[in-house]
Amino acid sequence: MSKSVLFSDITIVTPHDDAPVSVCEHAYCAVAGNAIVYVGDSKEEAEAALSGMGDVSYETYDGTNKILCPTFANAHAHTPMTIFRNIADDKSLQDWLFGEILPREDKMVPDDFYYGNLLTLAEMISSGTGCCANMYTGSVQIAKGCVEAGFRIQQSVDGKRCQDGNWSVDRENVQELLSYIADIQSDLVKPSLIVHSIYLYPEYFYSRIADLAREYSLPITVHISETIRENEDCVRQYGCSPVKKLDSFGFLTDTTVAAHCVHLSDEDRSILADRKVWVAHNPGSNMKLASGVADMAAMQKAGVRLCLGTDGAASNNNQDMYWEMRLASFLAKGTTYDPTVLPAEEVFKMATRNGYLACGFDDCGIIEKGMRADIQIIDYDCPQMWPLGNPLSALVYSCGPRCVESVMIDGRFVLRNRELLTIDMEKVKAETKAIMQRLQ
Amino acid sequence: MSKSVLFSDITIVTPHDDAPVSVCEHAYCAVAGNAIVYVGDSKEEAEAALSGMGDVSYETYDGTNKILCPTFANAHAHTPMTIFRNIADDKSLQDWLFGEILPREDKMVPDDFYYGNLLTLAEMISSGTGCCANMYTGSVQIAKGCVEAGFRIQQSVDGKRCQDGNWSVDRENVQELLSYIADIQSDLVKPSLIVHSIYLYPEYFYSRIADLAREYSLPITVHISETIRENEDCVRQYGCSPVKKLDSFGFLTDTTVAAHCVHLSDEDRSILADRKVWVAHNPGSNMKLASGVADMAAMQKAGVRLCLGTDGAASNNNQDMYWEMRLASFLAKGTTYDPTVLPAEEVFKMATRNGYLACGFDDCGIIEKGMRADIQIIDYDCPQMWPLGNPLSALVYSCGPRCVESVMIDGRFVLRNRELLTIDMEKVKAETKAIMQRLQ
Repeated sequence: MSKSVLFSDITIVTPHDDAPVSVCEHAYCAVAGNAIVYVGDSKEEAEAALSGMGDVSYETYDGTNKILCPTFANAHAHTPMTIFRNIADDKSLQDWLFGEILPREDKMVPDDFYYGNLLTLAEMISSGTGCCANMYTGSVQIAKGCVEAGFRIQQSVDGKRCQDGNWSVDRENVQELLSYIADIQSDLVKPSLIVHSIYLYPEYFYSRIADLAREYSLPITVHISETIRENEDCVRQYGCSPVKKLDSFGFLTDTTVAAHCVHLSDEDRSILADRKVWVAHNPGSNMKLASGVADMAAMQKAGVRLCLGTDGAASNNNQDMYWEMRLASFLAKGTTYDPTVLPAEEVFKMATRNGYLACGFDDCGIIEKGMRADIQIIDYDCPQMWPLGNPLSALVYSCGPRCVESVMIDGRFVLRNRELLTIDMEKVKAETKAIMQRLQ
Repeated sequence: MSKSVLFSDITIVTPHDDAPVSVCEHAYCAVAGNAIVYVGDSKEEAEAALSGMGDVSYETYDGTNKILCPTFANAHAHTPMTIFRNIADDKSLQDWLFGEILPREDKMVPDDFYYGNLLTLAEMISSGTGCCANMYTGSVQIAKGCVEAGFRIQQSVDGKRCQDGNWSVDRENVQELLSYIADIQSDLVKPSLIVHSIYLYPEYFYSRIADLAREYSLPITVHISETIRENEDCVRQYGCSPVKKLDSFGFLTDTTVAAHCVHLSDEDRSILADRKVWVAHNPGSNMKLASGVADMAAMQKAGVRLCLGTDGAASNNNQDMYWEMRLASFLAKGTTYDPTVLPAEEVFKMATRNGYLACGFDDCGIIEKGMRADIQIIDYDCPQMWPLGNPLSALVYSCGPRCVESVMIDGRFVLRNRELLTIDMEKVKAETKAIMQRLQ
């Protein structure tokens, strides 16, 4: 059990479910166990809240020139792909995926998933991210690393088996992850099921994997309409858009995370809004792979639920949610000639509260009493954040990984004074370098 | 005189004037005085080069897990504007400039230019930038700070005087900066002349300021076609585009730095190319103010000379050339559906060699024998840069301010192990915070 902590005289920036993002200076936040037990402007009340929990030996964290806000929940990642970082750039999605990435992925072994994932967790944690929705195989190896590192994850499982051209569901693979999650008795890991996209499986397989999802009540993680070509191929093969085809199998529900959604019709957006799908916007990857610019203003207008992701490190090429927030806002403004679109408040909420809801962690992403203590501390005593101005604007438009001083997940410090506390970086670096070289 | 340095067993990434960007692993770079005296793969030859200069007590800089590359030259900045950072966001350029910025600027006193500039220099240096083309008044205060901080700058001077609605040239202001530069006998400062834009002065004044530029042989720094409204107003008032009108006064030459250039016709691009104008692309500011996306592919096709700038910290909201490189490349790819546009090599050259040429420092921006020692050292022993992959891709697509370990300008370390050596940050922070509050 971690020692209780009183974050003292600090600036708290947080979204809320039914109110605008709030900024409170000279505030106090008390953490006991894995939960926030007090947020407000009274030191005495914060101390009383900790005393009431029986914690008299809590630690005080000095909040001078610091901002406290929720950690980010990255709503679309492929964590082991850090080992493919900076090996194939300035290429189209088709050339990059089929020419560079899939041939390497075919050669991966279990340890590769484990160490590739840990490298990503190190990058995520040190840049303020405390959770991700992860679409990748190697589920148990990845989940194991997350539990060791103290990182929150919605980890997907691959439910397909393909032998001699015949596709069937892989019930064992699903059961293996679910058993692992049941055994560890940790709140850090939740499962989801991969439906890669409308273009990767034979048609007959989609209804089988849909049945599998229903059988185990698994949320779906899926790529939708990432490229124009995907849409054109879908119309040619199925006579409708990827959204409509996937919806016909029942894949679109209020627990589904749909990544990209770059090329949508009004009807597509209406379906996504009606089904309450979480759309994970991935501006960095979409731009780098030249997939196009998702129309965020239209999605907002249609009432689509929005969150934010980095995609894998092989197509971005980092896992920095600060970069992604700023890019999302800038892209939306610059391509619509409207500087009020996606203001700081909205991208901040997408990156925090909405991301946690998309990942299924309803008690994270807000700094309020009773929520889980998933918290990052920003040091604004540095040239890029000075003078602070509006703290919310500063977080979105000026901040970056360099300013992330500490990260707490589920009440446990995993980064403190910029030092990773739960990951053996020397081991991870040596292993991932060797893996990259082996897979070349 | 600084001690000589041998950068040893390091990865050197550098542009060249007549060859592609090169990447050399296990290389050596020797610096004596303010110049690079050896670059190559032989430790013995590097040592001999230093010995030949009479330097037997040089320092060795261990290059393990380090990249050595040129510092960035930021081709369009307004350095004192850090004091307006994060005070007015999600607004249009017109509302932001006329409603928020100009009223504050009217109240500025000389010390404000001095300290606001130093704060920007601190941010620039700690994110790998060693030079900028600066468009702002308070020229001598700014130049003084640059010399003290050891920072290279093309500092503009404002040649206008406006009293009771009458505009005249301010010869004294120009002479003051030129005298200061002559007196200090430093290579760090070069002058330029502000021609703010085609929309800020009365028509009769443009020919007067053009005469002033010729009289003192001053390069011009100018904003061109930043917004659609600027173009429309220009056509309404003058019957032609800003490029054509400014060209009619002789402002467009091979020493001119034209910022933004977001909305250009084919004819405009052709004129800019013919006149060999340096166009400073400012993707961050253009997107944040919703000005639009400059068509970099069309500019390249037309043969326009391109460099890169951050614009002021009030409209970006930082001074990070890593962010600007990546954004430039991503924007160009994502808006054209072509992932090969503005590859890593081209934005890296825009940010380094081209920027120095635009600022008039012809002997900077390349890591070659005989060039000035304006160098940054990147530490890639961190999660976001690991495993390195292609070092050039890593610099553009994964790197950031956090990875900048050391910066040398004109042979002198100004940042070492992430510590600023030439700027008193406690003083600068206290002064800029007070200035921000006073100007509110």
